[in-house]
Amino acid sequence: MAVQTIASATGIDLGPAAALSCRECGHRVPLGPVFACEECFGPLEVAYDLPAGSPQELKDKIAAGPQSIWRYAPLLPVPADVAAKPNLNPGFTRLIQADRLAADLGVDAGNLYVKDDSGNPTHSFKDRVVAIALEAARAFGFTTLSCSSTGNLAGAVGAAAARAGLRSCVFIPYDLEQGKVIMAAVYGGDVVGIEGTYDDVNRFCSELIGDPIGEGWGFTNVNLRPYYAEGSKTLAYEICEQLGWQLPDNLIIPVASGSQLTKIDKGLKELIKLGLVEDKPYKIFGAQAEGCSPVSSAYKDGHDVVRPVRPDTIAKSLAIGNPADGPYVLDITRRTGGAVEDVNDEQVVDAIKQLARTEGVFAETAGGVTFGVLKKLVEDGRISPSETTVAINTGDGLKTLDAVAPTTGPTATIRPNLDSFREAGLA
Amino acid sequence: MAVQTIASATGIDLGPAAALSCRECGHRVPLGPVFACEECFGPLEVAYDLPAGSPQELKDKIAAGPQSIWRYAPLLPVPADVAAKPNLNPGFTRLIQADRLAADLGVDAGNLYVKDDSGNPTHSFKDRVVAIALEAARAFGFTTLSCSSTGNLAGAVGAAAARAGLRSCVFIPYDLEQGKVIMAAVYGGDVVGIEGTYDDVNRFCSELIGDPIGEGWGFTNVNLRPYYAEGSKTLAYEICEQLGWQLPDNLIIPVASGSQLTKIDKGLKELIKLGLVEDKPYKIFGAQAEGCSPVSSAYKDGHDVVRPVRPDTIAKSLAIGNPADGPYVLDITRRTGGAVEDVNDEQVVDAIKQLARTEGVFAETAGGVTFGVLKKLVEDGRISPSETTVAINTGDGLKTLDAVAPTTGPTATIRPNLDSFREAGLA
Repeated sequence: MAVQTIASATGIDLGPAAALSCRECGHRVPLGPVFACEECFGPLEVAYDLPAGSPQELKDKIAAGPQSIWRYAPLLPVPADVAAKPNLNPGFTRLIQADRLAADLGVDAGNLYVKDDSGNPTHSFKDRVVAIALEAARAFGFTTLSCSSTGNLAGAVGAAAARAGLRSCVFIPYDLEQGKVIMAAVYGGDVVGIEGTYDDVNRFCSELIGDPIGEGWGFTNVNLRPYYAEGSKTLAYEICEQLGWQLPDNLIIPVASGSQLTKIDKGLKELIKLGLVEDKPYKIFGAQAEGCSPVSSAYKDGHDVVRPVRPDTIAKSLAIGNPADGPYVLDITRRTGGAVEDVNDEQVVDAIKQLARTEGVFAETAGGVTFGVLKKLVEDGRISPSETTVAINTGDGLKTLDAVAPTTGPTATIRPNLDSFREAGLA
Repeated sequence: MAVQTIASATGIDLGPAAALSCRECGHRVPLGPVFACEECFGPLEVAYDLPAGSPQELKDKIAAGPQSIWRYAPLLPVPADVAAKPNLNPGFTRLIQADRLAADLGVDAGNLYVKDDSGNPTHSFKDRVVAIALEAARAFGFTTLSCSSTGNLAGAVGAAAARAGLRSCVFIPYDLEQGKVIMAAVYGGDVVGIEGTYDDVNRFCSELIGDPIGEGWGFTNVNLRPYYAEGSKTLAYEICEQLGWQLPDNLIIPVASGSQLTKIDKGLKELIKLGLVEDKPYKIFGAQAEGCSPVSSAYKDGHDVVRPVRPDTIAKSLAIGNPADGPYVLDITRRTGGAVEDVNDEQVVDAIKQLARTEGVFAETAGGVTFGVLKKLVEDGRISPSETTVAINTGDGLKTLDAVAPTTGPTATIRPNLDSFREAGLA
């Protein structure tokens, strides 16, 4: 990846964001549309001047804030007046106490929760990260919002740009699910199918950003990535606030690039540092599909390096063969005493149906991966029935109907009379 | 429709619900699973002992309540502890200030709002009504939750029953959109396709309910209809609360059975009576698809009686040819100075795309009908640019992809290199 010229920090108001800092060597640079350290090529992330004041004051301020991620604006790289600007106001989705799923899996009642991010405006967690990237794009004066995407991100970028009045141009693998393609295109921006995998799309975007064509373009997950990625912290904030400002014992998080898991861990550590939750051990588990499990494989083999793979799974939103944050996922799951685990496509479909049948939540394939891994972890004892566990459903089953379509349909088709109903054997 | 034996009111705790009262003759009966007046066959609705106390006390209580329809539990036929029971906790969806759509339509900035009910758990307003029906089903000891449905209701019933641990068996026209069929079936209940229209499905359910097979069955929109319908009042409550406890000047509401429009009017009148909003005139407009516009036709012809039609429209969730509450819709729209209007299928698709392009909201065809009618009303001056107008998006575009699929897709498909991108003419 090419290192871009560092933009001047003058006049950039992104709230508590103070600078960008290299995750590897700690080198700091002013806020700008850059993503790789000029010293060591490590990834840059946002460094904050976190708010002063007592934990209770901050809790009260959050509780009085909007019913969206903007209640946590003092902890995010966004201006203080962000809620007043046209954006999709994502977040503050339901945390569901899942007692029927718990009973099915053998977890004690009251201990299992589903964080259901299908309730976001475009029905995936991507609305969170895009909302933050949009603010950065505005701050840096970009006029086109772009991304490489496995589908959900394309829809989230298209919708956010439409609402904000920016042009959008998104890049997707040409063979995505129809629902995701239409959802990306319906907002009126340009949608470009790329003949290749997501990793090919990603490489193309890196090329585009170094070319004069890409001037004025904010790629949410490339040159805006340091800001974008911070959006996932809000999942950590919401889960803890919704648990009554407590840390869960276990978190199960799907792993595509690994960014979400990494930033949720960052968010939890911030809450501890600010005194918003009591410090105690927690375990973070990563979930992958067997057909694209480079991080899970590295975890199981005891490696620190993640070897890229060519994805082959129905969980297309997790089909990133060369995950940028893979090494950090290994580090976090090992440090917290968690793990990275994977399930096959059949287990993905079974888990989607189990969650729907027990809790009325229809997850997309990525959710199937997460809940399939949850089942595996409970069965083999790595998650204890007596601990508090939160699993994240990051997307919506309506976007991946193909996964369940072959085994889901009407029980019977009848004529509109009682005899026909009796014949169907359902009375 | 057959009148059922009245259940005893003993031990039925549905909060402030005091009795059922006939909308036509005022005859009162105890709370029970009945829907038609034994005196005059008019529709029964819930009569309340509304809460005492000052408006400010009630506002404070609501503000301190959950982020769902249960914040309004003191105004609904549900027990006081309803939020603690397993249900989908729908509602409190986003009210979006739609300045870009307003600019497109010629409405003054700050005056147009979208109430986006696609944010509900199964992505339609039906989660509201089903949540209320579920409480009634529990109160009356029903073990199967059922309905006749054009799709959205089937999904909402399936999901709610799954979460509550009840059996579900829903009835739909056999030719529904695939997304809606799968969404109904994935929750593990029975889904029965009926060879006929929605009106045929509805007639079949009325027959079933009078048969011994139907014992123990709660049909959300038949024998639980008086309770179920009350769920739509929450749209009125939320809109007014989200506007800072003010009535809008105009409301645009889609008309299928007409129940939603009727109950929103009831909710607004309750808020005035309780002093939660200042009393002032408001206009209610009903929206239908040209291919199923019995109420709009009656409105335009100056009739009080609605003549049934055979539906032929892409807006299948509004395709009720014999709308039960049609006469009340005529009454309310005329009394408030509103109107009932309709748009054709092309206008429906255009409106879906306009809303997506300007506000990042992807509506289903019913939403397209509503926003198409909004456009018509603004263009012909029946809605003034200087008045506050709220239009309701009742469902999600992901469930009616077929409507936009022919005209929505990738702008281009390219090879992963800059030359190929330049050739596509998008640089």
